[in-house]
Amino acid sequence: MSEQIVIVGFGPVAARLVDELLPAVRAGQVGLTVIGHEADAAYNRVLVADLGVGRTTPEALALADAAALAVDGVDVRLGVKVKRVDRARQNVLLSDGTSAHYDRLVFATGSRPVIPNLTGMNPDPAAPVLPPGVTALRDLRDAAVLRQAVAGRKRVVVLGGGVLGLETALAAAEEGATVTVVHNGPHPLGRNIDRGGGAVLAASLRSCGVRVAGNARSTGVEHNAPDGGFSALLLDDGSAIDGDLLVLSCGVRPRTELAEGCGLSTGQGILVDHRLRAHHEPHIFAIGDCAEVRCPDPACIECRTARGPSGLVGPGWRQAEWLAEYLQRLAEGPQGDADSLPPLPQEKPGVIVLKARGMNMAVAGDNSAEPWDEDVLTAGAVNGRPRLQIAQWADPEHGRYVKMTTRGGVLEGLVSVGMPRTAGELVQLFERGAELPADRSLLLRLDGPDQLAPSAASSDPESTVCRCAGVSGGKITEAVTGGCSTVAEVSSATRAGTGCGGCHEDIKGLIEKHFQAAAA
Amino acid sequence: MSEQIVIVGFGPVAARLVDELLPAVRAGQVGLTVIGHEADAAYNRVLVADLGVGRTTPEALALADAAALAVDGVDVRLGVKVKRVDRARQNVLLSDGTSAHYDRLVFATGSRPVIPNLTGMNPDPAAPVLPPGVTALRDLRDAAVLRQAVAGRKRVVVLGGGVLGLETALAAAEEGATVTVVHNGPHPLGRNIDRGGGAVLAASLRSCGVRVAGNARSTGVEHNAPDGGFSALLLDDGSAIDGDLLVLSCGVRPRTELAEGCGLSTGQGILVDHRLRAHHEPHIFAIGDCAEVRCPDPACIECRTARGPSGLVGPGWRQAEWLAEYLQRLAEGPQGDADSLPPLPQEKPGVIVLKARGMNMAVAGDNSAEPWDEDVLTAGAVNGRPRLQIAQWADPEHGRYVKMTTRGGVLEGLVSVGMPRTAGELVQLFERGAELPADRSLLLRLDGPDQLAPSAASSDPESTVCRCAGVSGGKITEAVTGGCSTVAEVSSATRAGTGCGGCHEDIKGLIEKHFQAAAA
Repeated sequence: MSEQIVIVGFGPVAARLVDELLPAVRAGQVGLTVIGHEADAAYNRVLVADLGVGRTTPEALALADAAALAVDGVDVRLGVKVKRVDRARQNVLLSDGTSAHYDRLVFATGSRPVIPNLTGMNPDPAAPVLPPGVTALRDLRDAAVLRQAVAGRKRVVVLGGGVLGLETALAAAEEGATVTVVHNGPHPLGRNIDRGGGAVLAASLRSCGVRVAGNARSTGVEHNAPDGGFSALLLDDGSAIDGDLLVLSCGVRPRTELAEGCGLSTGQGILVDHRLRAHHEPHIFAIGDCAEVRCPDPACIECRTARGPSGLVGPGWRQAEWLAEYLQRLAEGPQGDADSLPPLPQEKPGVIVLKARGMNMAVAGDNSAEPWDEDVLTAGAVNGRPRLQIAQWADPEHGRYVKMTTRGGVLEGLVSVGMPRTAGELVQLFERGAELPADRSLLLRLDGPDQLAPSAASSDPESTVCRCAGVSGGKITEAVTGGCSTVAEVSSATRAGTGCGGCHEDIKGLIEKHFQAAAA
Repeated sequence: MSEQIVIVGFGPVAARLVDELLPAVRAGQVGLTVIGHEADAAYNRVLVADLGVGRTTPEALALADAAALAVDGVDVRLGVKVKRVDRARQNVLLSDGTSAHYDRLVFATGSRPVIPNLTGMNPDPAAPVLPPGVTALRDLRDAAVLRQAVAGRKRVVVLGGGVLGLETALAAAEEGATVTVVHNGPHPLGRNIDRGGGAVLAASLRSCGVRVAGNARSTGVEHNAPDGGFSALLLDDGSAIDGDLLVLSCGVRPRTELAEGCGLSTGQGILVDHRLRAHHEPHIFAIGDCAEVRCPDPACIECRTARGPSGLVGPGWRQAEWLAEYLQRLAEGPQGDADSLPPLPQEKPGVIVLKARGMNMAVAGDNSAEPWDEDVLTAGAVNGRPRLQIAQWADPEHGRYVKMTTRGGVLEGLVSVGMPRTAGELVQLFERGAELPADRSLLLRLDGPDQLAPSAASSDPESTVCRCAGVSGGKITEAVTGGCSTVAEVSSATRAGTGCGGCHEDIKGLIEKHFQAAAA
């Protein structure tokens, strides 16, 4: 009899796991059940804000086709919740009264938005129902609410200065809404960026038409709209920011209550070892935003640089791919065969990239040290390890700022605002762990007025173009040579561009380059 | 009968005045007396430190030939002091018992070093006699003392982090002495430089072999050398800096006591109007380091940006040239004719340039604002005047730092450390009041690894090469075309290079360029 696998959750990461397991399902090796509490099959949640401002369609977001999966023999159950996991009987009990047996159970329950504690808005944290005119911009219905506000050129207040809030704000402002970002630090992006970069970023946002209210502590919402909906965000200094729609962008929190309910260990997320197995439970796994990789053994070398859930789709996809392989090996043979699969490599620290018409920003790593902070710069320089060094270009008048934090010539942190090509080069140097040129100012030239050609680095075929799906420029060029001539074709052939979409312009560039070379 | 002019003092500025008046002396229009209290005729005091490290000879420093002047009819009196000025009788009474009548009296008494108040060293402030092993490096005897220490590779302690102290320290270190600069601020050069530039400057000094003791308050000197001379500088934290020679470089103070003794008004220096006339005394003038230009009328438009004595030789030379013309007009005709001479243009704010093997620094103007000091940057922006803007490159690891403080695109301050060509270009842009390129980072390219040719700007014939004598590149090239083939020949033909000597390399470059072009 085939191995029964049940996946709880049907977001982008679950969809990838389903995709990867399909051959085994078709071969009758594996029986697969997917349980999604939304009525829709998996869609690309990363693009909900883009959908909200009218830049994409619900069809383009789709990541799975429930009917086609059913034809392939996958048991897809939509619009139902898992009420309880019975670990003793290896059963999940569903809200529609049915149940499903599992040999292996995978949690891919993702995360839910953090709802701040504001007067006039006190939803149930487990199942938030937000008042009218307030959205957390998480699902397709939220996107429709934003779409209406943007199309009506309404006033949108974004609460939260993180990257998702800023992207939403920039896109909504570009599409015609009047947007204010409210955040409670000295500058947006908090500790991801430094003071100088934050100051230039805030000015750049303003020059893109986004109002930025910093150092603002919000205390409540006012509901004086004609329909009783949101009318203003109230601040602790007694002032208020008027608006027609409040978008909450205050971060996310892993959905762990189901796992907790059946006695699994949780930290930030559901605790799993570096083979993605729940602690002390060989039948249960967790992947994506709900999972926290950290072995029970604190000395585990694989987990020494493990971080909590990243909130990014790319690492979840790589977990899904790896787990599909592992589950198939488990279905086929003894545990030892499965365990001979090398564990998933550690994810590199994330790079935050922000692009909009007229602005560009990239940050990565640790940017907290300033050039003259001798104590901070020399803190880790022991046993022959070199000290941190900083090179910094600040030209706030022209909206430009770069900070390179290096150790032994290799980037440990980068900030770039208003210098897209320098940013691109620095991100690649950061991801490759490559040494910078001794004259750091050479990097600034990439954004000089005489630099019309794309930067040299972007033509390196080894460099990653799509960070979500982990696809190199060489792979994309291969697909183009093989006949792909649009981004959509490249995406379906390579998966490049199927995540956040930030690389679409780069993919276009590679396509154009190929056809120009062919024409020459 | 001819007009009797008496000059008190025979330094570089007096020598220039004598030089300019010589034609009138030879023509019998003017009778000229020069009174120098040193035994030597005028010599280039700016190069005393160079002489002290053995880089030049006393002969090369000479600026006047007493015997030749006597032949021309100038009454040169050396080694005598003026005891008193009798303004009622228009007479000066000298230490040798003689006297001299004047129609016009010119004070060119210069300045004397500030002697800090240190235990174990309490000289008479009016006529300092320093203990053995301590020198203020002001005259030829002081140079001989330093020469001996450097030749013997002794330990030299320089007290004071000003430009003269740093130049002396760098030169002495290059020539083999063990040198420590002691200063009481967070970095050398005090408020002339900013925090970032100061930090990189201090590191550059160290990499040139100069020890730098900052935030050090000196309290006394120790005399434990075998000859009873200086052995250590004592600090207020109880520590001591051992050495064989203490060079005091704590600034200078105008010599005004003679002027005060005869009832002239003094401030920092002898107060003169913008025609260099002592206040309310048409027969007396002052030029050079002893003079402070500030009209009795506080509303005088010519004096609105007047500063105290600069301590630089260039402005004194320009005063001497102007005054020679004015005195000749007074000798020839009525006061009105003389007053039709346009007043001396205001000096531009000084540029401090520091060069040594392996280091280069230039600072000018106001560098106190930092890129994120919104209050400071916007303080003067009223009535449509643009706010200050800052562009800054910091790469302390490689000893490089640039700060450009602009208003409306024009430099109001500059700092450059470790980037000689960028510094040269910025100094020229500063002096011309020219607008910077919108992409400020273009200026950094001048010091890029690919920039082998001299910067384009240095070939602009209008740009000043010798700032002391105010000679342009075009004038120098003209002299070279006219037959000069050494720096000495160019100097005697144009006066370029006769001041601080900082432009000698540039003059050499122009000579080489000419002969290369001729050979091509």
